[in-house]
Amino acid sequence: VVVVLAGGTGGAKLAAGMAAVVPPAELTVVTNTGDDVEAYGVHVSPDPDLVTWWLAGIIDERGWGIAGDTWAVMDQLEAAGRNPWFRLGDRDLAMCLIRTELLAAGERLTKAHGAVVRGAGVESSVLPMADEPVRTHVRTPEGWRAFQEFMIVDGATAQIEAVEFRGADAARPTPEVLDAIERAEAIVIGPSNPVISIGPILAVPGMRQALAAARTPVVAVSPFVGGRAVKGPTEAFMAHTGLPLTAEGVAEAYEGVIDAIVADEPVDVPGIRSLETPTLMDGREARARLARAALELASSSA
Amino acid sequence: VVVVLAGGTGGAKLAAGMAAVVPPAELTVVTNTGDDVEAYGVHVSPDPDLVTWWLAGIIDERGWGIAGDTWAVMDQLEAAGRNPWFRLGDRDLAMCLIRTELLAAGERLTKAHGAVVRGAGVESSVLPMADEPVRTHVRTPEGWRAFQEFMIVDGATAQIEAVEFRGADAARPTPEVLDAIERAEAIVIGPSNPVISIGPILAVPGMRQALAAARTPVVAVSPFVGGRAVKGPTEAFMAHTGLPLTAEGVAEAYEGVIDAIVADEPVDVPGIRSLETPTLMDGREARARLARAALELASSSA
Repeated sequence: VVVVLAGGTGGAKLAAGMAAVVPPAELTVVTNTGDDVEAYGVHVSPDPDLVTWWLAGIIDERGWGIAGDTWAVMDQLEAAGRNPWFRLGDRDLAMCLIRTELLAAGERLTKAHGAVVRGAGVESSVLPMADEPVRTHVRTPEGWRAFQEFMIVDGATAQIEAVEFRGADAARPTPEVLDAIERAEAIVIGPSNPVISIGPILAVPGMRQALAAARTPVVAVSPFVGGRAVKGPTEAFMAHTGLPLTAEGVAEAYEGVIDAIVADEPVDVPGIRSLETPTLMDGREARARLARAALELASSSA
Repeated sequence: VVVVLAGGTGGAKLAAGMAAVVPPAELTVVTNTGDDVEAYGVHVSPDPDLVTWWLAGIIDERGWGIAGDTWAVMDQLEAAGRNPWFRLGDRDLAMCLIRTELLAAGERLTKAHGAVVRGAGVESSVLPMADEPVRTHVRTPEGWRAFQEFMIVDGATAQIEAVEFRGADAARPTPEVLDAIERAEAIVIGPSNPVISIGPILAVPGMRQALAAARTPVVAVSPFVGGRAVKGPTEAFMAHTGLPLTAEGVAEAYEGVIDAIVADEPVDVPGIRSLETPTLMDGREARARLARAALELASSSA
C-alpha cells in the first residue's frame, strides 16, 4: 500500500500520478475533511471529491467539479431566489447526494464517501481523515468565518488572524486510515497547503503518532513551484503561521512528521533528506514523474 | 380566504381552478404530507409540490414534476450504480433542496415548504397539514410498505390489507392551517383520494374538529368521473375500506366533516346537500367552472 495525504488540487494531482505508477488498488489517499460543508442540506466534501474526480479521470479542466457537468439545479435555485453560493454541478450534486443519503442513514463518513468513490469507478481508496466532523474556521477582521465562506463568499482576500480546526479534538483517525498507515510501503504528503489542507489531517489526535510509528519513512512534496504556490491561498496561510514561503518552511510545518522532502529548491534542514527535482505537474507525465520521485526518495530514506 | 384540502392531481387541479376564480393571495391549500419521503437524503413532498407546480403553472404534462425539467442528477445516480427509484427532475430536486436545507436548519415544514412556494412565484398559501412527520403505510401480503414504495416500487398492484398514517397521533394542524380554516369563507375538499390523500389530513387530531367548528360549510368534490376515479389507486383504496365507488361512498368517507358535495351523479345522503355537474377537469375552463360550482354550493349551503 502507498498512502498519500492530500488536500485539494496539488495533493489530488500527485494522487493521480501515483495511481499511474502503482496499481490503483494499492493506493490509499487520506483526505482533508476540514473543508466539508453543508450546502442546500447536502454534505459536500470538496477535498475528498476533488481527489476522487482526479483518480476517476473526470476532473473538469477548471480545476474542480466533474467534466462536462451541467448546472440545472443551481440555475433553478437561483431562479427561485436562493443564493447558490456553493456552485455544485448536477453530476457533482448527485455524487454528494449518495454521501448525504448514507450519512442520513447513519453510515460513517468513510463508508458514505466510499460509495462515492466506487460510484465514480475508482479502485483506489479515498479516505476521510476522520469520521467525526472537523471544520476549518478562519478568523478575519470581520470575525470567524467557516472555511468555504472565507474562500467563496469573501474571496479569500480577508486578513487571516487565526485558524481553528473545530471538532478536531473529538476526532480520531479512522480504523481504515490507521490500517493503511500501518501497512504502508511508502507515505507521501502531497503538495497541498501545509496549514489548511494537510494541517487539519495532522490535527486529528493520534494522526502524527500513527505516522511516526509507521514502518516506512514519510516524504513530503513541497507545494512551492519556482518559489510560489501554484494555486490557492497557500502563501497567505503560510505567512500567517510565520513559516517561510519555501520548501524549508514546509519542512518546518511538518517537523516531527516527515523524514524527507521533494522540492524544486535546495532544502537544508537537519535530519531531513531531500530530493531536488521539478515539481510542476502540468500533465500526466509530470504527475507520474513526481510520484515516482517521491517513491524513490521514500525508498532511499528507509 | 378560500381553503382547499388537496392530495395529488385532482385536488391540485381544483386548487388551480380556484386560483383562477378568487384572488390567488386569498387561496390557502391544505395539503397531504402522508406521501412525503426522504430520497437521497432530500425531503420530497409530492402532494404539496404537485399543488405548488399546478398553481405556478409549471406542472409537466406527464402529471407530475416541473415542465421541461432535465434529469442530469438521476442519470448520474444511475451511472454511479445507485437506484434512482424516486425520479426527481433537476429543477424539482432544486426545489426539494430548498425545503431540505431549511428543515436541516430547524425550520418547521410549513416555513420550509413556504420557501418552495415563494420560490415558484406562487401567491397562494400551500400549507402542509402538519409540521410533524405523518407517513402513510400500506400493508400488503408482502408486509408493510411505505406509501411511495407501494406506489412506485410495487406499482400499486399489491392487495391492500391495511392502511396506517404513522405519526398522525403525534401531529397537530399547524397554526397556519387552523387560522385559515377559522377565517375561511369557503372550505372545499378537492377531488382527491378520500382514503389516502384526504384521509391523512383528516387523521391529524384536531383537524375534523377545526373543520366542524368553521363558520362556513365544508363542500367536497367527488373524485369520481363517470363512475371511475380519473387517476391513481383511488378505487382500490375505497374498496379496501368497504366504501362504495360512488359519490355517496365519498360522502360516507367524509361523514361528520362535510355539509355538501359536488358530483357528476345524484347523491342521496341525509343531511348532505349536493350539486350534480360535470366533474372532469380537462382544461383551464373546466377547472375554473368546477371551482365556481363548489363555491356556489358552499354559498348556498351556508
